[in-house]
Amino acid sequence: MGDKENKTKQKKTKQTRKPAAKSAVKAVSKAAGKTDTRKSKSAPKKQIRKAKQEKKQPAEVKIIPLGGLGEIGKNMTAIEYENEIILIDCGLSFPDDDMFGIDKVIPDFDYIVNTDKKIKGLIITHGHEDHIGAIPYLLKEINVPIYGLRFPLGLIENKLKEHGIRGDFHVIEAGKEFRLGRYFTIEPIRITHSIADSVCYSIKTPAGRVFHTGDFKIDFTPVDGNPIDFARLAQIGSEGVMLMMADSTNVVRPGYAQSEMVVGETLDGIFRRSKKRIIIATFSSNVHRIQKIIDIALQCNRKVAVSGRSMVNVVELARELGYIKIPESRLIDLNKAGNIPDRELVVITTGSQGEPMSALARMASNDHKAINIRANDMVILSSTPVPGNELTVANVVNQLVAKGAEVIYSDIAETHVSGHACREELKLMHSLIRPKYFMPVHGEARHLQTHADLAHDLGMPRDRIFILNNGDALTLSNKGAVKTEKVADAEGIFVDGLGVGDVGNIVLRDRRLLSESGLIIVVASIDKEAGMIVAGPDIISRGFVYVRENEDLIDAACERAESIIIDCLAKNMKDWNGIKTAVREGLRKYIYSKTERSPIILPIFMEV
Amino acid sequence: MGDKENKTKQKKTKQTRKPAAKSAVKAVSKAAGKTDTRKSKSAPKKQIRKAKQEKKQPAEVKIIPLGGLGEIGKNMTAIEYENEIILIDCGLSFPDDDMFGIDKVIPDFDYIVNTDKKIKGLIITHGHEDHIGAIPYLLKEINVPIYGLRFPLGLIENKLKEHGIRGDFHVIEAGKEFRLGRYFTIEPIRITHSIADSVCYSIKTPAGRVFHTGDFKIDFTPVDGNPIDFARLAQIGSEGVMLMMADSTNVVRPGYAQSEMVVGETLDGIFRRSKKRIIIATFSSNVHRIQKIIDIALQCNRKVAVSGRSMVNVVELARELGYIKIPESRLIDLNKAGNIPDRELVVITTGSQGEPMSALARMASNDHKAINIRANDMVILSSTPVPGNELTVANVVNQLVAKGAEVIYSDIAETHVSGHACREELKLMHSLIRPKYFMPVHGEARHLQTHADLAHDLGMPRDRIFILNNGDALTLSNKGAVKTEKVADAEGIFVDGLGVGDVGNIVLRDRRLLSESGLIIVVASIDKEAGMIVAGPDIISRGFVYVRENEDLIDAACERAESIIIDCLAKNMKDWNGIKTAVREGLRKYIYSKTERSPIILPIFMEV
Repeated sequence: MGDKENKTKQKKTKQTRKPAAKSAVKAVSKAAGKTDTRKSKSAPKKQIRKAKQEKKQPAEVKIIPLGGLGEIGKNMTAIEYENEIILIDCGLSFPDDDMFGIDKVIPDFDYIVNTDKKIKGLIITHGHEDHIGAIPYLLKEINVPIYGLRFPLGLIENKLKEHGIRGDFHVIEAGKEFRLGRYFTIEPIRITHSIADSVCYSIKTPAGRVFHTGDFKIDFTPVDGNPIDFARLAQIGSEGVMLMMADSTNVVRPGYAQSEMVVGETLDGIFRRSKKRIIIATFSSNVHRIQKIIDIALQCNRKVAVSGRSMVNVVELARELGYIKIPESRLIDLNKAGNIPDRELVVITTGSQGEPMSALARMASNDHKAINIRANDMVILSSTPVPGNELTVANVVNQLVAKGAEVIYSDIAETHVSGHACREELKLMHSLIRPKYFMPVHGEARHLQTHADLAHDLGMPRDRIFILNNGDALTLSNKGAVKTEKVADAEGIFVDGLGVGDVGNIVLRDRRLLSESGLIIVVASIDKEAGMIVAGPDIISRGFVYVRENEDLIDAACERAESIIIDCLAKNMKDWNGIKTAVREGLRKYIYSKTERSPIILPIFMEV
Repeated sequence: MGDKENKTKQKKTKQTRKPAAKSAVKAVSKAAGKTDTRKSKSAPKKQIRKAKQEKKQPAEVKIIPLGGLGEIGKNMTAIEYENEIILIDCGLSFPDDDMFGIDKVIPDFDYIVNTDKKIKGLIITHGHEDHIGAIPYLLKEINVPIYGLRFPLGLIENKLKEHGIRGDFHVIEAGKEFRLGRYFTIEPIRITHSIADSVCYSIKTPAGRVFHTGDFKIDFTPVDGNPIDFARLAQIGSEGVMLMMADSTNVVRPGYAQSEMVVGETLDGIFRRSKKRIIIATFSSNVHRIQKIIDIALQCNRKVAVSGRSMVNVVELARELGYIKIPESRLIDLNKAGNIPDRELVVITTGSQGEPMSALARMASNDHKAINIRANDMVILSSTPVPGNELTVANVVNQLVAKGAEVIYSDIAETHVSGHACREELKLMHSLIRPKYFMPVHGEARHLQTHADLAHDLGMPRDRIFILNNGDALTLSNKGAVKTEKVADAEGIFVDGLGVGDVGNIVLRDRRLLSESGLIIVVASIDKEAGMIVAGPDIISRGFVYVRENEDLIDAACERAESIIIDCLAKNMKDWNGIKTAVREGLRKYIYSKTERSPIILPIFMEV
């Protein structure tokens, strides 16, 4: 836990971005004695830049992952050459359990925003949140043209609308090369993943070709009938690839990920056997699966209703763009679903991760305006829990079962397949691309290491495999590849409500302490001159114990506080902080001895 | 989440147990309008008892699960006939993520403690925490003789010592029938599970035989060479079983759980190939596995050191009782492990669930006094994450990998097998015991339902299968079996530090709110008579924002509070609570509009 805290820094707010305040931050950092360049976070940025410029040689291309290494989430990579930078993806990650109250975590944009280089564009591999979710926050700081296929751009546009931002969008097509700036020639290559319009990128740079797989699996029978262009991948491999960055998510899983078709077959069997009302939850972004569900529903003479904000939005977008097809007459308003006989209805809904506010969770707890779960319902979770969500998913399943519904989830039937390549698929990708150097990406430390081992097992020498941390750089030149640690700040920035970076480790530590044992406030009015307590002390607590049933404890603590204050005043102690510390320490010991709990203790004295 | 909160009640403290206070609790409950008997928690206990007694007929045996149904954890069952009760197990459960600051959850003992019946004894199926962990808390309320095999009794004795309690222990043996009270004849039958000395119980009652499987798997090749007595199980089945209660944990898993031997084979292969220092984490209670690890270590000419408090304690106990055998010369002090060459050492440690304070987690974060992880270490996690622990385990693995260790865990090799029966094993148990009635136990709602379906698939009519909730009763008599809902309070009781039941939903709600956005305290001294603010208002916050970088926001909130107070005083408002509400509401809206956060706002006014 502590380790994770260290990874995330207190971000400078708008004010502190200005030069004056910035040096103030440096001063703080120096005062704290952080002089080691590798570990110091905010201090020697300018120095680093300068050092870089001095070292810099003409033919060097730098690859700088700003997120996505050592984690699954907030994927973002900068590629820079001379005064130009291009970016690949700009995702968010969801908070860990110990990031209390945090809504999302985004990459640190300082390196990009404060650079003197020109950001030529942001290219998008696909439309999942961990690849596009931080774009609104990036655009609030700096305008960057965005390049991507139609579906991800549609998702990004929807997202920007919610933030009241307009984007500079450029639709690209798989197989069609385009140029960014003077130095980068980019070719998107269609690949299969759990969302429509996913691509790999081949990027020609002055130091050779860089190949980024994006997120992928190898699906020989994709739902949309658009297979992977293996010939083009092989050709790129033959033309020569200097560096490959490849998805490491499933590198510990043996064999192959199953085709999306398998889910279709499972659902087809289930739908055909059932005469119940069917409610099926899945990822709203997986339009191929949604189309498959619609197809099967129509074949079984069922109508389809859609539930959950993101599901409604994505289905609308995907129908506009032609990625989902359903006759108007078969798509019905959720509010009219009550008029349809159970055996003629399928509701497609969000909530497959058991998210407490999602449509499915609300149905399960009788809190949904149109659908309540009952005994003649079959609920299908076409998903597996994302790591960390196991308990929330189980909780929703249990609620549904307790309401009498028949619930089918991934433990019971093959209702989901992974979108990420397993070991044999990764080996195929390595064998097609045959890069000179390899950098595993999109994975926690254990995934990156195992992916490095896999590449080595395939014959790549260890010194051509580079495991980086976020913020490190890999420099490519005709001399080869060299890793430089810590060229950019790359700890995550916390988003909490409207605040970006205004909650840091100190605030989180307080939230953690408050969550564990609550707090005790000791209030008193003191006449320091006369050396006496005028009013109080009173004790107010929140989250500590149920006060009405523990009056003895509270009263005793109050007496303890009073005698400490009187002691201090009798000793003629005039120092506010000294008295507060005495009260805090005295009460801390007393409370712990009685309860073995450590609430935050907050003495508040008013001078009269 | 909200649903879970409802499941757990504010427990009456010692004082409120007394009759006077009890009626006070009733009054609160009535005032809140809870008149429905099924849902009301604390109110009509006496009425329920009376109603029961009136209805009661001579030949009725009641089975009352007090924990373990609709959850994995805090297993406890009461069996009562006339004025006698026996208890099976008395376990704890670990808190969910939303039970902030709670250390453990134990069953509600009210039904047992306040009964006029005689508790004849507590019989123990095996020594896991979810079956024995609440015994100290039970014994603090009521003295109950404890019956069990030697190993679980040894574990319980250790546990009681920590609480300064002595238990009334009775060692029983598998296969030897014994009597409890006038009515119950009990036979423990040896069964295989992931801990030594696990048993099923056959319990002859005046209403027929009750069979409780305890936790089990069917391991044909157990490490200790004590196979299951299938003949006896079959004989019991032939003699006739009125009711079976059976473990439902793995009922959604197809096939058979693997034998513990498989883990031995995996570890044997790994140990033989490695020349590194080996650190292996597993469950301290699984003495069979620990013996297997020791055996393999000795064969590979390695010495063994033991790390982690519970591992040290269990190994000591198990050696005393003869469950673990290792020559004195081969077991070395952990502090001397540094003197042993890497290839000659195995460290067996706790921490296989990634618990932040465990020995392994401390090794991974350089916080262990004897062992620091380095590149020549191989770390084996001989475990799978208990649901909910996936992220903490992954976190420790990532830390270990980042330190250069080779880490082998259950995703990579078969380093663990489950201790609970999968579907085919459950079918075998049902087929051997052939009970008249069946009650699935030891499972969440989904497991109980699936186990009920399994029994039905095996030919049992639906009306002979009973899914109960904790606190319900199943009454067995010559007329059959009848379920009665809610005869006992059975929500979990929270243990937080030394407090048992003094933290309830109100305190937890405050802890949750504090954890999400912290709190803001508004302090002012007010002269109400003069209608003016004498000092303040000042704002103090914890866990809200980093104050030094958000002074504008805090200053503006302070001004807002001041103007609200002045307004109130100008309107001649004399009502303290009215002014506080105005400040709270005014600030709440202001803060939300600026931050989209909802900290707890606590106005504290001192009258001068």
